[in-house]
Amino acid sequence: MSQTPQLPVPPMKWDAWGDPDRVTELSDAQLGMVHDLLKVSAADLDPVRRDDVRLRPSQLSAADFAALTAVVGAEHVSTADADRLPRAGGKSTLDLLRRKSRAEQDAPDAVVVPGTEDEVLALLTLGGQRRIAIVPFGGGTSVVGGLDPLRADFTAVISLDLHRFAALESLDEVNQEAVLGAGLPAPEAERLLAERGFELGHYPQSYRYATIGGFAATRSSGQDSAGYGRFDDLVRGMRVVTPIGVVDVGGAAPKTAAGPDLRQLFLGSEGAFGVITSVRVRVHPLPETKTYEAWTFPDFATGAAALRAVEQAGTGPTVLRLSDEVETALNLATVDTAGGDGPAPGGCLAISAFEGPAALVAARHEATRAVLLANGGTSLGAEPALRWAEHRFDGPYLRDPLLAEGALVETLETATSWSNLAALKQVVTDTIQAKFAACDSVSLVLCHISHVYDTGASLYFTIIGAQRGDAIAQWTQIKAAVNDVLVGHGGTITHHHAVGADHRDWMTDEIGTVGVQILRAVKATVDPAGILNPGKLIP
Amino acid sequence: MSQTPQLPVPPMKWDAWGDPDRVTELSDAQLGMVHDLLKVSAADLDPVRRDDVRLRPSQLSAADFAALTAVVGAEHVSTADADRLPRAGGKSTLDLLRRKSRAEQDAPDAVVVPGTEDEVLALLTLGGQRRIAIVPFGGGTSVVGGLDPLRADFTAVISLDLHRFAALESLDEVNQEAVLGAGLPAPEAERLLAERGFELGHYPQSYRYATIGGFAATRSSGQDSAGYGRFDDLVRGMRVVTPIGVVDVGGAAPKTAAGPDLRQLFLGSEGAFGVITSVRVRVHPLPETKTYEAWTFPDFATGAAALRAVEQAGTGPTVLRLSDEVETALNLATVDTAGGDGPAPGGCLAISAFEGPAALVAARHEATRAVLLANGGTSLGAEPALRWAEHRFDGPYLRDPLLAEGALVETLETATSWSNLAALKQVVTDTIQAKFAACDSVSLVLCHISHVYDTGASLYFTIIGAQRGDAIAQWTQIKAAVNDVLVGHGGTITHHHAVGADHRDWMTDEIGTVGVQILRAVKATVDPAGILNPGKLIP
Repeated sequence: MSQTPQLPVPPMKWDAWGDPDRVTELSDAQLGMVHDLLKVSAADLDPVRRDDVRLRPSQLSAADFAALTAVVGAEHVSTADADRLPRAGGKSTLDLLRRKSRAEQDAPDAVVVPGTEDEVLALLTLGGQRRIAIVPFGGGTSVVGGLDPLRADFTAVISLDLHRFAALESLDEVNQEAVLGAGLPAPEAERLLAERGFELGHYPQSYRYATIGGFAATRSSGQDSAGYGRFDDLVRGMRVVTPIGVVDVGGAAPKTAAGPDLRQLFLGSEGAFGVITSVRVRVHPLPETKTYEAWTFPDFATGAAALRAVEQAGTGPTVLRLSDEVETALNLATVDTAGGDGPAPGGCLAISAFEGPAALVAARHEATRAVLLANGGTSLGAEPALRWAEHRFDGPYLRDPLLAEGALVETLETATSWSNLAALKQVVTDTIQAKFAACDSVSLVLCHISHVYDTGASLYFTIIGAQRGDAIAQWTQIKAAVNDVLVGHGGTITHHHAVGADHRDWMTDEIGTVGVQILRAVKATVDPAGILNPGKLIP
Repeated sequence: MSQTPQLPVPPMKWDAWGDPDRVTELSDAQLGMVHDLLKVSAADLDPVRRDDVRLRPSQLSAADFAALTAVVGAEHVSTADADRLPRAGGKSTLDLLRRKSRAEQDAPDAVVVPGTEDEVLALLTLGGQRRIAIVPFGGGTSVVGGLDPLRADFTAVISLDLHRFAALESLDEVNQEAVLGAGLPAPEAERLLAERGFELGHYPQSYRYATIGGFAATRSSGQDSAGYGRFDDLVRGMRVVTPIGVVDVGGAAPKTAAGPDLRQLFLGSEGAFGVITSVRVRVHPLPETKTYEAWTFPDFATGAAALRAVEQAGTGPTVLRLSDEVETALNLATVDTAGGDGPAPGGCLAISAFEGPAALVAARHEATRAVLLANGGTSLGAEPALRWAEHRFDGPYLRDPLLAEGALVETLETATSWSNLAALKQVVTDTIQAKFAACDSVSLVLCHISHVYDTGASLYFTIIGAQRGDAIAQWTQIKAAVNDVLVGHGGTITHHHAVGADHRDWMTDEIGTVGVQILRAVKATVDPAGILNPGKLIP
């Protein structure tokens, strides 16, 4: 593959997470663990280079290409492999394994970059007429197959890149609302808001690359969700271009009783109902103060009960999270701050942070401390929490060198009620470990709670085992087993990664047959030709 | 009309709000105002008594009646006028004027009281087969025509009374969740929860009669919404019987990214998508402490800005409301506590309340005080706020003696952004006063903010003018003019009263043509025969 790109290329590595210039190397301890425990090594592998990649040739007809260029201009359409490859999928481990395949791999037949809602509408119309499926593309950070170039029964599939919708369209300082272009990368949105003294405060692990429209389309949840809410809590309105017209959901009022809340149909619609072009969000003044405090708990159950007590009392932390024993121990083992003042091995590390006006921060911190102390917590001071904050977006970088050594590394997540949390954590862990054992690999399953609610919490798992044989097939089987467990044991199939192609087969379990019929009816209404992101979300 | 009821009768007066045994008389000052200012008097009116009421005879065929009784048993079906009349409508002023009419008035052709979900499903199936429309009935407190016995093109319409779904089905003290039967009146729900040490905390003005299912179906909002949230914030799940099957929306997880939130389609569905049979809600421990403080502001704009500052800072009051100058002055004039320590005339009264653990209540109260003081507020101490709390559900009782004197009294409400609040309040007030002036009546328009959000607030208007000629036609015209103003000036058609029949014609303005198409598609999917509450919600 040798063509040069015709369009601005998404800023991540083509076959890995993150900054192309950043090299993450494993420590000797990590390498030793991989070699000794998992019995895999990069020495046994023959890495695929970019020049080895073979894409399925573009299926787009000359007439279709001409029609696309007639809408957006020739400079905004490309069928070059160098443009198609970085939009061939997201950043799940399955995506990365597929990118590193020597077999011919699939990719969108073209990339199109509209600049206006009228152009988007024209593209959707054209897609219906010419039987071309359309996959909206923001930051390319999906980890659930949301960007898979599935053709269904269409003649071609194109990637509709939204990076030209990148303006801070308006900021109302009285109402504390901003209208953000859907293609704005989150850091750029925060930079534009910060210039005016405001912040959105949405920091998922994908923060450095994900876009505003993607957050809305996937019901993203950020690390500050305890304080600022999930992204669906922050959204006041959206403009969505559907094949039957533009929808402006949300209206001028902060809340309404005028029937069902249609925002909540387009939040989480994952490109299947329309193309989100702008999102109106609640913003807040840049926090006057930030305070951090780390805690240790003797075990996960005690820590989880303490987090529950904080959340149900409503003491108001901005960040509240808890690592289990394995995650706590492994982070200690890999962070090279020897002899430090870190938590005693065997415990569970919790992080709390507080942001806002100084007086409120002090009051919330004090109230939260009181609850944590009363529920078995021991303060570790600010330092471990500051270290967490400093490295909060670095986790995904560790996966790539581990994959390169032949490890199988992935994350998955769910949520459930507080009373079901321990049982669900156990059965998911057991399922993963049994599956790896069945392919003759030990595995490490790390877990943390990163999102807390009155009635329950999320569980986020990081899994490290050995690649054995066809790693794509291997992980697909493990993931399917976990999904069965989640829907059978009171978990949701996804708390914040979304459905995409990977969770779609479990949606009937998740929302029931009537729920699926409703989604299909909405889909048939707004996208009668079915061109929008086929094969995702709706079974 | 003389039959005796065959079924338990809803507990309110047949032609007025509230407790049948309670008599509300106007004070001399109030009577004087009505006579002198509005130039109307009860002496000029000939009140309609219950025996004068003539209902349209039941259209239900003997075969249909037999089919209904086969489902629920003969003791749970009635075509008696005494059962049909109290379910002929809700408690809007239009409803009450219709009830007091000497002309033949419409009513459901029968009342049916199922006791199980299977019976509800059988009734919906029967409705589709026999072309009978079905209006779900909870507490009968709708003020938007949500209970109108509209037949559309059906052979009959029946009222489906949910009062047998009246159990606290479960309470999970760890997750702080309760499952409440949809037919539970709110006070009974609170009594059952309080026995276990918990509270729902949803106190709309309709509290004494409204039901849990009705709160969900109409997106009700209570007076403690600043602290505990609107009812749609409290709902974690619902069981809904639709004609195509039972839906259990919400799942076990507190939050999910598994696609659109289908709860938000059934919240606000007003009986048009299904019959809600139970609601899973967030509950909280009975508050350890309650603290009240009243405030006065020199004018509405200053007070509104202070409320905005509190809400945007997030200091955490449970109740926060502000009366405008007219409402403040009139409440003073009508409450017979002469020489009291009330606010100085000319100002605007604000109420704040704080509930929860003592330490948090103290911190929230202190933080809120600081913001209110910094924004032009003067404390009036606890007493006026306690008086408000004591009489918080009494407002609707005053309407009935005023109507009996020939006044035209009604309320309406909206919400908008903070920056649009003053302009919208003004244009609504002007519109109402111009309309009354055109029928030769002065009018009083009182307004308050009772629900505050980060980005905006509600506006609740109480209107008092004179009945002139056909009061139903008169109010219908005034209300239509206000609705036009709301959708044209950045307001929502309803913040918490819902859509019903009365706001339905403005729904296309509210949610757009694509939004209406979506609602119709969902309706066609879950209720293919269209039997559920026809003529409401969806235009």
